[in-house]
Amino acid sequence: MIQNLPGFRDFYPEECALRHTLFETMRNCAQHFGFEEYDAPILEPLELFTEKSGDEIVDQLFSFTDKGGRAVALRPEMTPSLVRMVGAKIHSLPKPIKWFSIAEQFRYERPQKGRLRSFYQFNADILSEISIAADAEVIALGIHILTTLGLTAEDFHVRLSDRKLWALFLETQGIPTSLLQPTLAIIDKFDRERPEQFLSPLRSLSADISWESVLENIEHFRSLKRIDALWEFSSSQRPLAGSVSALEQRLQDMACLLSRLHHMGYGDVVTLDLRIVRGLAYYTGFVFEFFERQGDMRAIAGGGRYDNLFQKFGYPDTPAVGLAIGDVTLQMLLEKKALRPQISSCVDIILCFDSPATECLAIKDASQLRQRGYAVTYSISPIRPISKQLKLIKPQETTWIVLYDGEKVLIRRLEPREEHRLHAEEVLNFFPPIFKSPEWKTTKS
Amino acid sequence: MIQNLPGFRDFYPEECALRHTLFETMRNCAQHFGFEEYDAPILEPLELFTEKSGDEIVDQLFSFTDKGGRAVALRPEMTPSLVRMVGAKIHSLPKPIKWFSIAEQFRYERPQKGRLRSFYQFNADILSEISIAADAEVIALGIHILTTLGLTAEDFHVRLSDRKLWALFLETQGIPTSLLQPTLAIIDKFDRERPEQFLSPLRSLSADISWESVLENIEHFRSLKRIDALWEFSSSQRPLAGSVSALEQRLQDMACLLSRLHHMGYGDVVTLDLRIVRGLAYYTGFVFEFFERQGDMRAIAGGGRYDNLFQKFGYPDTPAVGLAIGDVTLQMLLEKKALRPQISSCVDIILCFDSPATECLAIKDASQLRQRGYAVTYSISPIRPISKQLKLIKPQETTWIVLYDGEKVLIRRLEPREEHRLHAEEVLNFFPPIFKSPEWKTTKS
Repeated sequence: MIQNLPGFRDFYPEECALRHTLFETMRNCAQHFGFEEYDAPILEPLELFTEKSGDEIVDQLFSFTDKGGRAVALRPEMTPSLVRMVGAKIHSLPKPIKWFSIAEQFRYERPQKGRLRSFYQFNADILSEISIAADAEVIALGIHILTTLGLTAEDFHVRLSDRKLWALFLETQGIPTSLLQPTLAIIDKFDRERPEQFLSPLRSLSADISWESVLENIEHFRSLKRIDALWEFSSSQRPLAGSVSALEQRLQDMACLLSRLHHMGYGDVVTLDLRIVRGLAYYTGFVFEFFERQGDMRAIAGGGRYDNLFQKFGYPDTPAVGLAIGDVTLQMLLEKKALRPQISSCVDIILCFDSPATECLAIKDASQLRQRGYAVTYSISPIRPISKQLKLIKPQETTWIVLYDGEKVLIRRLEPREEHRLHAEEVLNFFPPIFKSPEWKTTKS
Repeated sequence: MIQNLPGFRDFYPEECALRHTLFETMRNCAQHFGFEEYDAPILEPLELFTEKSGDEIVDQLFSFTDKGGRAVALRPEMTPSLVRMVGAKIHSLPKPIKWFSIAEQFRYERPQKGRLRSFYQFNADILSEISIAADAEVIALGIHILTTLGLTAEDFHVRLSDRKLWALFLETQGIPTSLLQPTLAIIDKFDRERPEQFLSPLRSLSADISWESVLENIEHFRSLKRIDALWEFSSSQRPLAGSVSALEQRLQDMACLLSRLHHMGYGDVVTLDLRIVRGLAYYTGFVFEFFERQGDMRAIAGGGRYDNLFQKFGYPDTPAVGLAIGDVTLQMLLEKKALRPQISSCVDIILCFDSPATECLAIKDASQLRQRGYAVTYSISPIRPISKQLKLIKPQETTWIVLYDGEKVLIRRLEPREEHRLHAEEVLNFFPPIFKSPEWKTTKS
């Protein structure tokens, strides 16, 4: 027997219904924030991902050469496709651009708890808006989605950090701009191993820096949790020209962002935490990750500002900030907190018959009732006694059962309990048209 | 600038909203028929597709070797994955199995009108039910979807054919069972070129058959549109033992299927048309294709019975019948018939403010209103005069505009026209909680 590939999931009806409900909830939340949905191809030219993504992602690509000789890859993340799509229409799109997507993504890595080779990601980005209000908006949307799913400030928190502040601080440590990205990439790994173990890779970046004392300062800096403590420590460091006022300004921006999130009602969810650096090299400002408050689960969501990426792709300079929520860790957390929703089958009416004549009446009615907006089922096996049909079906208490008996019908429901005896011709009158969303409304109709 | 790949689509917000509405309508229709949704990985082991699909599909695979040395392919169709998933749980799933999916699929062919390299397909299948009622049910679901989208019997029709009848007829022509599939594969191409051109490939199948007279009979047979005419002509052919009663029985089954569709109200949509054969080799019984009634567009939908596929994959024998609707030709037809729906932005409330103090009130209210189920937006750019904000927004007539002015607010709407002056603290009272589907309902909440 052929199995599915490791790290890929089959969605049997129960899991598929759960996924659909989760995605529709996310979609609804994004629309509540005024975001519009987009999607890009799952397969893109390889160079879209090799040129600007981090090395880690490039190593994990599902890439190949197509029958036309093109180097192509399954998308490992959504941002490069977003930049390509927005970049191509940057002059005609109304600003700011607030877009979201819910899309499958692929990374070839060892399948493990919370990490699969295929996963879904909710992405929301605000483009062409430099203001801190945009950063607050994507963070708030992430929190709104998680709270709509039933999670509370006791279940999760947002750890907010800032790569701009990190850059200014590393400048006070005498680290040249050219070494900023590789130094941050090493700092990003501090939580996984002991910082001392990074002395040797740091030394290999430059022999001119006394990394031991710098490392000590970095460790102290990343442990600070309050803006005044950050100010006190940073400004005490050997400041370079201009850095002090830039540092002060940046800490004010951070205070402003935190205050805005506080006004939104999310003050208890967001904490300052400079241990967050984010793996992707393209982030330029505030960065954040959503974590379970207790426990050692991987991040549920993450994101930040990436103001230079459009330019790197050759498009006009466009400030940008984004958020991504992965479906795998999120579902793990929902399970853990007993927040898996009840998915109920949605059959409204079940028709039962025991002769060719009543079958004929029933399928006529079924067709009409479905057009009226009801979910209707009946046996499609060769005709069996009604008692057998009733044994086989497991209706919900709110489902109507219609029993055809010659020219008469018995219509009944358990909750609220009702029972009616009608002429077979009256079934349609009993069920007036209902309209369920979505409706296909054209100018024509 | 990097472009997307040929034959792949970017979905900008307008197209993405249209796609979502289309898929939700299809999903709704399938649920009205009591079908449950499933999904399988987009990437599957290559052998899943090479072993049982037709040669044409195998030639068009996006296939490659993954980093772990596995031969893999992007799915070109859904049926093999469906068989794999159902086969693995065939003993525990309640019968009959009625499943649907809406899934992206990939074929490397020349991009042209109505054919892309990536497309979406709605698939619905009934498994483990041999009765003709199952065939009728999937055809009816296809018709229900198209009519729900606004198409009528004047716009499209279903051409119904039968590979079993074809097999019985070819038997009367002295064609051995071993040549049945290759002969049908050639007959499938009759509509694209003149039948005479197929004499040479037919002759290469067997030198013992007088193909010229057989070809004449085949041409006559496939032109017949009525069951009595089919009976008259088929039974007049050199019958082999047993074929006559089998033919008679099969024509009765066909009459029964047509009558059932007639009772469902679809008599004017379905026509007998033996020119339909279907390309895929795995069909074993009734087959059908949905076409625009006038015009030369490709088929919008197609399907049929494939009772042997589970066994071919090594699973227990399981009768099956399915339907597939492609999104590309369907959307072309909807455009042509002016049935593209109106997609409206769904912002309920726009908040306007012109000072840090009123901004603070507004973002507090926004957060609460979004939690109450409203879609709310406001300017996230640096504060501008309200007159400028009003110029930039294009609210729908039903959108509420809330203007913050110190401690007062003006709330207004165009349609139906309303205007209210309130204290800023009263905004939340003005908008009571609303609940939009879907709701995330857990046992906990």
